[in-house]
Amino acid sequence: MVSDYIPPLKDINFVLEHIAGAHELAGLDRFSESFDASMVEPVLEEVGRFMAEVVAPTNVDGDTTMSKWVDGEVITPDSFKAAYKQYVATGFGSIPFDPTYGGGGFPWTVGVAIQELLTSSNMAFSLCPLLTQGAIDAIEHHADDKMKSAYLPKMLTGQWSGTMNLSEPQAGSDVGAVATKAEPVGDGSYKITGQKIWITFGDHDMAENIVHLVLARTPGAPPGTKGITMFMVPKYLLDGQGNPGEKNDVACVSIEHKLGIHGSPTCVLSFGDNGGAIGWPIGDEFTGMRNMFTMMNNARLSVGLQGLALAERAYQGSLAYAQERRQGTAVGAKRGVQSPIIEHADVRRLLMSQRSWIDAMRCLIYTNAASIDRSKALSGEEGEQAREMADLLIPLSKSLCTDLGNELTSLAMQVFGGMGYVEETGAAQHYRDIRIGAIYEGTNGIQAADLVGRKLPMRGGGVVMDHLAALDLKAKELASQEGMAVFAENLETAVATARDATSWLLEHGATDVNAALAGSSPYLRMLGTVVCGGLMADLAMKADKSSDAEFAEAKKVSARFFGEQILPTANGLLGAVTAGPDDLFALTPKQLA
Amino acid sequence: MVSDYIPPLKDINFVLEHIAGAHELAGLDRFSESFDASMVEPVLEEVGRFMAEVVAPTNVDGDTTMSKWVDGEVITPDSFKAAYKQYVATGFGSIPFDPTYGGGGFPWTVGVAIQELLTSSNMAFSLCPLLTQGAIDAIEHHADDKMKSAYLPKMLTGQWSGTMNLSEPQAGSDVGAVATKAEPVGDGSYKITGQKIWITFGDHDMAENIVHLVLARTPGAPPGTKGITMFMVPKYLLDGQGNPGEKNDVACVSIEHKLGIHGSPTCVLSFGDNGGAIGWPIGDEFTGMRNMFTMMNNARLSVGLQGLALAERAYQGSLAYAQERRQGTAVGAKRGVQSPIIEHADVRRLLMSQRSWIDAMRCLIYTNAASIDRSKALSGEEGEQAREMADLLIPLSKSLCTDLGNELTSLAMQVFGGMGYVEETGAAQHYRDIRIGAIYEGTNGIQAADLVGRKLPMRGGGVVMDHLAALDLKAKELASQEGMAVFAENLETAVATARDATSWLLEHGATDVNAALAGSSPYLRMLGTVVCGGLMADLAMKADKSSDAEFAEAKKVSARFFGEQILPTANGLLGAVTAGPDDLFALTPKQLA
Repeated sequence: MVSDYIPPLKDINFVLEHIAGAHELAGLDRFSESFDASMVEPVLEEVGRFMAEVVAPTNVDGDTTMSKWVDGEVITPDSFKAAYKQYVATGFGSIPFDPTYGGGGFPWTVGVAIQELLTSSNMAFSLCPLLTQGAIDAIEHHADDKMKSAYLPKMLTGQWSGTMNLSEPQAGSDVGAVATKAEPVGDGSYKITGQKIWITFGDHDMAENIVHLVLARTPGAPPGTKGITMFMVPKYLLDGQGNPGEKNDVACVSIEHKLGIHGSPTCVLSFGDNGGAIGWPIGDEFTGMRNMFTMMNNARLSVGLQGLALAERAYQGSLAYAQERRQGTAVGAKRGVQSPIIEHADVRRLLMSQRSWIDAMRCLIYTNAASIDRSKALSGEEGEQAREMADLLIPLSKSLCTDLGNELTSLAMQVFGGMGYVEETGAAQHYRDIRIGAIYEGTNGIQAADLVGRKLPMRGGGVVMDHLAALDLKAKELASQEGMAVFAENLETAVATARDATSWLLEHGATDVNAALAGSSPYLRMLGTVVCGGLMADLAMKADKSSDAEFAEAKKVSARFFGEQILPTANGLLGAVTAGPDDLFALTPKQLA
Repeated sequence: MVSDYIPPLKDINFVLEHIAGAHELAGLDRFSESFDASMVEPVLEEVGRFMAEVVAPTNVDGDTTMSKWVDGEVITPDSFKAAYKQYVATGFGSIPFDPTYGGGGFPWTVGVAIQELLTSSNMAFSLCPLLTQGAIDAIEHHADDKMKSAYLPKMLTGQWSGTMNLSEPQAGSDVGAVATKAEPVGDGSYKITGQKIWITFGDHDMAENIVHLVLARTPGAPPGTKGITMFMVPKYLLDGQGNPGEKNDVACVSIEHKLGIHGSPTCVLSFGDNGGAIGWPIGDEFTGMRNMFTMMNNARLSVGLQGLALAERAYQGSLAYAQERRQGTAVGAKRGVQSPIIEHADVRRLLMSQRSWIDAMRCLIYTNAASIDRSKALSGEEGEQAREMADLLIPLSKSLCTDLGNELTSLAMQVFGGMGYVEETGAAQHYRDIRIGAIYEGTNGIQAADLVGRKLPMRGGGVVMDHLAALDLKAKELASQEGMAVFAENLETAVATARDATSWLLEHGATDVNAALAGSSPYLRMLGTVVCGGLMADLAMKADKSSDAEFAEAKKVSARFFGEQILPTANGLLGAVTAGPDDLFALTPKQLA
């Protein structure tokens, strides 16, 4: 295998410290007792070693052996079961959670770095801990203490896993259409009946219990999102000692045959085929959607992170192959001798495009994570500012990074040439695995609608405009940096374009929602690229903080490549952002055919 | 299955007649006897019906049953064998070939339209006739009459199929590194020994014989591309009656496990394990590479066509699904009622982006095909102009359309949401199948090198500059068209950008080959987009030639969408084209990691 995974710790640590400001979080009350910034590097080194040695080698097996549905139960690959057992033993999953329940009390930002290492190693496998973390989040925020004490300690380690049960056949993106029923039994519990689809790790044999969080309607609930309540429905009901006992009335009735992430079972779950699954409400009646929103930022950021993580893994494979594979004679090389393909200019472009975007994505994702941490740790205006930044960046992180996950894993495959199209090299698996990222956790189109419909209107557009003004200042600062003049000029231009686009959307969106929605996806790409331009300017200006001069130079070149060769593409999107909805809706289906 | 294939005959016929000028080919001497333009529509209707009814239904079976390697032979799916038998009976494969050997004598342009219908129906299946056509081409141009008479009639129908044997493990993109040996026997035949890889339909059970065209080296041949000779090596040697007799010394030793086109066996062929496979030279010694080049334009165009064909098929599925699937309430729709997702603006964008690019690709591919026909049918300056146009467009057709094949099949999958990620809907298959297009027949990077290294230098850049000047005139013409003012302005701007980019490459490429190569891929995308802009301007201006007002309106909207929302992206690529090679080569592999 060419694609053995090497944890990119130098990059991760640099971005955490100097771009996202993760170390500074240690100075905030919320983290001061539990988080020692000097522990970040050693912890990530240990995590990285574990992921590379234990989890990464299971990636291909998950793809080929696959999780399978046998006699009504899901059987994961043996390699998964073995690696998961070790993962639980490490306790790495608990690092960013509440010490009260056994967590490490580290900021979420560090948790995201751990997640990157896990996801690059094996995306399909990583989804089990990822969904568990989402469930932990919901329980931590909305459940009562009794439930927390009963479930959280074992979920934090991963001994028990968690799932999110939202979708039903008629309720995918449209969560408000949920029809699953919850009938009160009278003792505080409910009987849940209904069918849920797309349930990631909805059944499996790696954990001792599975804690399903289920959205359902209580009798007389109002229609739409306002009538939804969240329930906890464990696969095995707890016995008197709090251990998994009697099996609940939940069954996995099939799993999907998917393009990728074959190791992750995507289940259809049937609740209540034998009278009703026992569940307990989490939070008040009808607060289910609001409770979901609590987790949404983290979940969407985690999916964006998948784009980064798979691009990183795919890139590593392509970089190795480009040094080994010899074809043709490069410009300036000795005639008649085949050169390693890394010496060809266009292969270099394939590599630099990946390198540069990966740096940009990492800056974006980690900065977004830190803003979430700050929004929770700070109060008053500072907290509000952090919240605004977190909210603005979320759709950019999710959509831009998953779109790029598709694009960059494709570039990596392209480096392999014909060998990339055969499955044995592993390049194709990354391309297949990451394709789900743009679809789940709110399709990228829904993220774009969120951007123009919820985020852009924050303070009447003020949040976006303030950020653009800050980027203008950054461009001025960058201009004095050696070798960065063109980048600085391009940043100024791109910010001006983004401002024009923003103004257009604010103006036209005010009277015609479809005008804003029509331009939403290209706007997201544009704004995301410009925001990344600002982060790459930071990277260029802060690179010398590294004690490693070669590393510093590498980051400057990567940043300049972005500023000169990628950032200008943002300007090319203005036409699509500002064209309005007329031509989109001009044609009948017959005319479209 | 949502994705039943409907041949887009209206579009194809319109583009053939009004954009590519295929009907005018009937007026040229070469075609005047054999080609009656009034036959185009009825022929394509019949071909379309056959492809939709007989070939398209085998597409999923090919993907899931796959061609398999069993006991040293390739077994194709039964559905393939049955469809192929019917395909041979129709004689459709012979339509664009020489009447002397049973062909229809139609222009290649019409052959390309037939190929579109075949490829949309089943890309994996289409590769068998496609490779056969390539082999026919080589034999028609370079073999002696005896060989032509012996092989061509049965190859034209498809009764016998053909293969191209270029690649070896060390000789992929670098064809000059071929090491397969050909030793003269003394009777005009040679004994061929060596291993060839990536041989599409290198073995199978659909045809009665397989005619391998093999590149090999004769004793004492000079190194590199100048020492290569092309040989014909049939799977079964012909007996006294010209029928397949004794098996030749060729064996399929394995097939690849690929991301897509599972129905198409990609073979490793071993020649001469038992003393040497018998082969005969096609053309003179050492002319193998030149003979390959004869076919190259057609082959590269055919691969570009695959991008169009799969985008069309995937689009049809997504358009149908967008009308059926209900999620959310669209702007202006009744509250509480789920709308078909086609009513959401961003889904409309996904559809219009596909619709518009598909129209542009079809204009490009068919225009390119017609320029090839004209280059062969005309002499003197007219012929030379046609040849220049054909040569310039080839790398654009191949790379742009295969890149778009990837991008657009991804948009189609996105319309399906989660259902797109499960294999049952068929959306994922198109995405997997087309991914090979950017890789084979010269990777897209090699096409870009061809563009800046061979095509741009034609007449010192004059061919490109003349074309840009013609597009400027077109922009002026378009400006007077109702509703096309913005498009016209954008075309003028994009042409100016392309001219700047072209000048930069001509200037800097003259002294530094790597300067041109560094910008080659973004330049190809830019120039391709601008050329498509010109073709879409044509489409807008000629749409009213259709007697169907709804169709004419649809083409105008599609063209305007391109001009306003897609064409401006070309400008965003100037930075990447003109950045030069320095940053590409600045980092060591260690720094890139």
